[in-house]
Amino acid sequence: MDGKSSNNTAGKPIRCRAAIARKPREPLVIEEVIVAPPKHREVRIKIICTTLCYSDVTFWKLEHPPAIFPRILGHEAMGIVESVGEGVHEVVEGDTVIPIFLPDCGECTDCLSQKSNLCTKFPFKVSPWIDREETSRFTDMNGETLYHFLFVSSFSEYTVVDIAHITKIDPATPPNRACLLSCGVSTGVGAAWKTANVEAGSTVAIFGLGAIGLAVAEGARLCGAKRIIGIDVNQDKFEIGKKFGVTDFVNSRNIGDKTVSQVIIEMTDGGADYCFECVGLTSLVHEAYAASRKGWGKTVVLGVDQPGAMLSFSSFEVLHSGKTLMGSLFGGVKPKSDIPILIKRYMDKELQLDEFVTHEVEFDDINKAFDLLLEGKSLRCVIWMKK
Amino acid sequence: MDGKSSNNTAGKPIRCRAAIARKPREPLVIEEVIVAPPKHREVRIKIICTTLCYSDVTFWKLEHPPAIFPRILGHEAMGIVESVGEGVHEVVEGDTVIPIFLPDCGECTDCLSQKSNLCTKFPFKVSPWIDREETSRFTDMNGETLYHFLFVSSFSEYTVVDIAHITKIDPATPPNRACLLSCGVSTGVGAAWKTANVEAGSTVAIFGLGAIGLAVAEGARLCGAKRIIGIDVNQDKFEIGKKFGVTDFVNSRNIGDKTVSQVIIEMTDGGADYCFECVGLTSLVHEAYAASRKGWGKTVVLGVDQPGAMLSFSSFEVLHSGKTLMGSLFGGVKPKSDIPILIKRYMDKELQLDEFVTHEVEFDDINKAFDLLLEGKSLRCVIWMKK
Repeated sequence: MDGKSSNNTAGKPIRCRAAIARKPREPLVIEEVIVAPPKHREVRIKIICTTLCYSDVTFWKLEHPPAIFPRILGHEAMGIVESVGEGVHEVVEGDTVIPIFLPDCGECTDCLSQKSNLCTKFPFKVSPWIDREETSRFTDMNGETLYHFLFVSSFSEYTVVDIAHITKIDPATPPNRACLLSCGVSTGVGAAWKTANVEAGSTVAIFGLGAIGLAVAEGARLCGAKRIIGIDVNQDKFEIGKKFGVTDFVNSRNIGDKTVSQVIIEMTDGGADYCFECVGLTSLVHEAYAASRKGWGKTVVLGVDQPGAMLSFSSFEVLHSGKTLMGSLFGGVKPKSDIPILIKRYMDKELQLDEFVTHEVEFDDINKAFDLLLEGKSLRCVIWMKK
Repeated sequence: MDGKSSNNTAGKPIRCRAAIARKPREPLVIEEVIVAPPKHREVRIKIICTTLCYSDVTFWKLEHPPAIFPRILGHEAMGIVESVGEGVHEVVEGDTVIPIFLPDCGECTDCLSQKSNLCTKFPFKVSPWIDREETSRFTDMNGETLYHFLFVSSFSEYTVVDIAHITKIDPATPPNRACLLSCGVSTGVGAAWKTANVEAGSTVAIFGLGAIGLAVAEGARLCGAKRIIGIDVNQDKFEIGKKFGVTDFVNSRNIGDKTVSQVIIEMTDGGADYCFECVGLTSLVHEAYAASRKGWGKTVVLGVDQPGAMLSFSSFEVLHSGKTLMGSLFGGVKPKSDIPILIKRYMDKELQLDEFVTHEVEFDDINKAFDLLLEGKSLRCVIWMKK
């Protein structure tokens, strides 16, 4: 099949519909676009469904670089391979795949190592382009270039993705569950499973119970954590948290003069074995570090703060506390080898995914997904390209 | 033997010689002192030999609290139990022991856990007293109280130490080797062995090749590290470093416009798997973190900077680098269970200790040990109480 296909669109541009972010904070506009055929090592995918992750919103709101417009956002999705470019041997037309923002070249030291998920050949960036030659596969009907987002751009009926960003999955996986593993849920589950390697019987504190925080809870639950403490300003999060194994809830607006770390230390008689910061505030990373158990506590940073934000720790405290601070991109999950494991655990009814989908809309209503997320009403809103 | 003894000094004060730090930066004065009998859970030890660690010098130089005078410094030593107080069952008169500044109560969650060496029952502090009731076992001939240091105070022919600070060792161990494991060497070896758990075949970078840095190299060598890079401003350190497995040397005064981290990244094609900061400068911790391999690099902080010194990291870098930052007090070594393992490895000719002893002096010449360390001429100078 290498570079060739039996379908009648292969090798030709496809005209289809895409939701374009033309200006910051303005509703996406669904327009017809031209999606070029996949080049060397690229795959054109027919998107079945996509979801909205907070990173899409961040880059939709941002007025300055690395934001860029007009752009096709979206990076959590599931689709079917429509055609492949030259040099692609890993997937063929008709394969079920999920695109993933994090590359997995399969050749570099990192991709070959079990210890890293940070590809050296294609370092992660919030690229406006599909490739390193700074080209796009999208143009609008006026011939204007549309920028890619995170190497995925799934808010389009068709998109083109480098094979390093594609994971082939079991075609029996429901599309509206598979797409969740494309970013946020894998990040959270992986942070507990891969980055922290949560020990059975341990105590976990999760700062922020959005989709990522709840996915950390789910990962910790799967690892056998005995106690999972969720911290949020929204009391409603506790009920949803219970579904993912959250055993205790701290409403940080309701603790009087105490700090969150003081409350956690009291609740756990010394601190949590693992703390996860899932909001993206340096102040919360400091609280998480303070709330982690001296001697062995691990704090995992998952949230993205503003560019330039600094984390500061007393040198004395770092030395004398025996604590560990770790960062985790995509939860330490290796796209091509770990995602199929997560899919299998879902199919085996171990990993819970259903509860993350709080809403589903049709592509025409994609802006509703933004509204729901911005209003804090949704965890994940699945957007179906065609119902 | 509980609380009783067959020797004729047990239960009575002992008059002996001690080196007293009466004022900051002034030579120690050897005087006669009275050492009270051990109280409940305490042990009186006849010191055979002691060594000088940089922490002794730090508190000898310091003019303000937590420094306090007059004080009996010294915390690396080896001795023989002279008598024990009530409630002491772990050692008896005549046992060979090393006192250790870090407590190991054997009862609390931390001491019972294999993951922590930070006793909860007796939290670490640079106590001026022997106990939590703020009493001293030392008085001078004018009846003035002499303060303890780090629960050890080994610059005295006899000292009194809480049983939580004592490890019984194989009496066949040469005294001038056993005393090394009382603090610095265990800290360095342990940082590689216990805290970082250095993987065989890996690459290690050590910032500062003093006794602790060299002990890290020795620990990394024992763990099977393939490449051990030593960084220091003193070219002579490379020769001594080779004895402990250092394979490459970077003189940080001789790298032009490059930073140390740039040099390490170039040498290792991406960064060292493990970086250890053994100097006590936050700027070097930052270099160590920068020099550690993205994806899996671990940076271990061993050096003590000035009180109030802060470590600052970009939130973005922590999140996106997948790196780990760890603190390590006493190298993560558990005094009562891990020290005997290190002693055995020395007796089995695996762990090198001999090379750390660069000088030996008699007790009367204890100030020479200070001069040698301050001039950077010694790694460890053993001070024999009686030759």
